[in-house]
Amino acid sequence: MTSDVQLSPTERSTIKRGKNRAVQDRQVLYDILDAGLVCHLAVEVDGAPFLVPTAYGRDGNRIFLHGSTGSQSIRSMIEGKPVCVAVTLVDGVVYSRSVFHHSMNYRSAIVHGIAKVAEDPEHALKVIVEHVTPGSWDYARSPSKKELAATVALEIDLTEASVKVREGGPGEEPADLEANLVWGGHLPLVRTWGAPVPHETDRAIPPHVSGRDR
Amino acid sequence: MTSDVQLSPTERSTIKRGKNRAVQDRQVLYDILDAGLVCHLAVEVDGAPFLVPTAYGRDGNRIFLHGSTGSQSIRSMIEGKPVCVAVTLVDGVVYSRSVFHHSMNYRSAIVHGIAKVAEDPEHALKVIVEHVTPGSWDYARSPSKKELAATVALEIDLTEASVKVREGGPGEEPADLEANLVWGGHLPLVRTWGAPVPHETDRAIPPHVSGRDR
Repeated sequence: MTSDVQLSPTERSTIKRGKNRAVQDRQVLYDILDAGLVCHLAVEVDGAPFLVPTAYGRDGNRIFLHGSTGSQSIRSMIEGKPVCVAVTLVDGVVYSRSVFHHSMNYRSAIVHGIAKVAEDPEHALKVIVEHVTPGSWDYARSPSKKELAATVALEIDLTEASVKVREGGPGEEPADLEANLVWGGHLPLVRTWGAPVPHETDRAIPPHVSGRDR
Repeated sequence: MTSDVQLSPTERSTIKRGKNRAVQDRQVLYDILDAGLVCHLAVEVDGAPFLVPTAYGRDGNRIFLHGSTGSQSIRSMIEGKPVCVAVTLVDGVVYSRSVFHHSMNYRSAIVHGIAKVAEDPEHALKVIVEHVTPGSWDYARSPSKKELAATVALEIDLTEASVKVREGGPGEEPADLEANLVWGGHLPLVRTWGAPVPHETDRAIPPHVSGRDR
């Protein structure tokens, strides 16, 4: 019901709690990252952890993030520092016969690494845009030199990572199942796209928006 | 289009980037926390930031988290340390005429604090269970003494927090709007509950599950 994917041999990426099954499959990590829209980036700032929720995109065994080149930027905060990145997809809630065994179904990816500045910011931006809004890179106006100059892209290697997945119904105490006093099961959480909302335009909705399926 | 809620006067909870409008309204923070299901907790472990996605519940101006009393527990990792907690709700994606101004609609809450052990773990557990699965506390079997003893609950004060909200259509360069070359707008992301999936039971689905609306 719960499975852990340990993708690297380091201590901090080895899952200790809720470890029912360990799988070595990097594709599970990629699938979770590809299914998410935002990640949470953690970095130490002034002696305390700091969290930034932000868009990202995956390119092979690395992810890209981006930010502005301004003084309070993501770059000045995190370049060269150890970071932790999490992408968590909540797939549902689990109703057990006991409040203690209530749970959630989820897919969670945790990456440990060092953020470094991406060598090709335009490529990084393309990966992020195509992740968040597939089809937009070729459809919308390309970035100008000025816009590219205002963008900093960071990349984080995915080598040190761990994954946890929980799915299905509740784990129960045998006595609770036998007593059969209350209903148990799970409630899936479904993520769907609503109808496109046009902005000051009489143009037809393009297929990469109207037909978006992920 | 983007609004920031700065809820405390500290430097780190003051939003510097994308600050179009500052609002002092703690209720916005509470609404975001109440609408979320998981939070991301960041804490420093062995000199690097560490992220834990976890369930939570809000009780007034604090949130509760819980974990096991085991040796690699959330408690041993974070008790007394500075933490940062984020709850991010993605509400949609924004298609601009330029790839540079593509964006996301979201509601984001960031809390800075110190995690301390909750005095009443049973109350904390009730708050968390009622947050994740409203109606379950009175319906399902109450925790046994053994189950309570295996649970540690942590609380984090919400005083130092910040909120960012983005909604609506794209911000555009005037020249892009005038050129009118491509469609622009946004695509809402809708979160709905699917049909309940029973687990080894012939009992009727209770109303707090079948009628769940948030």
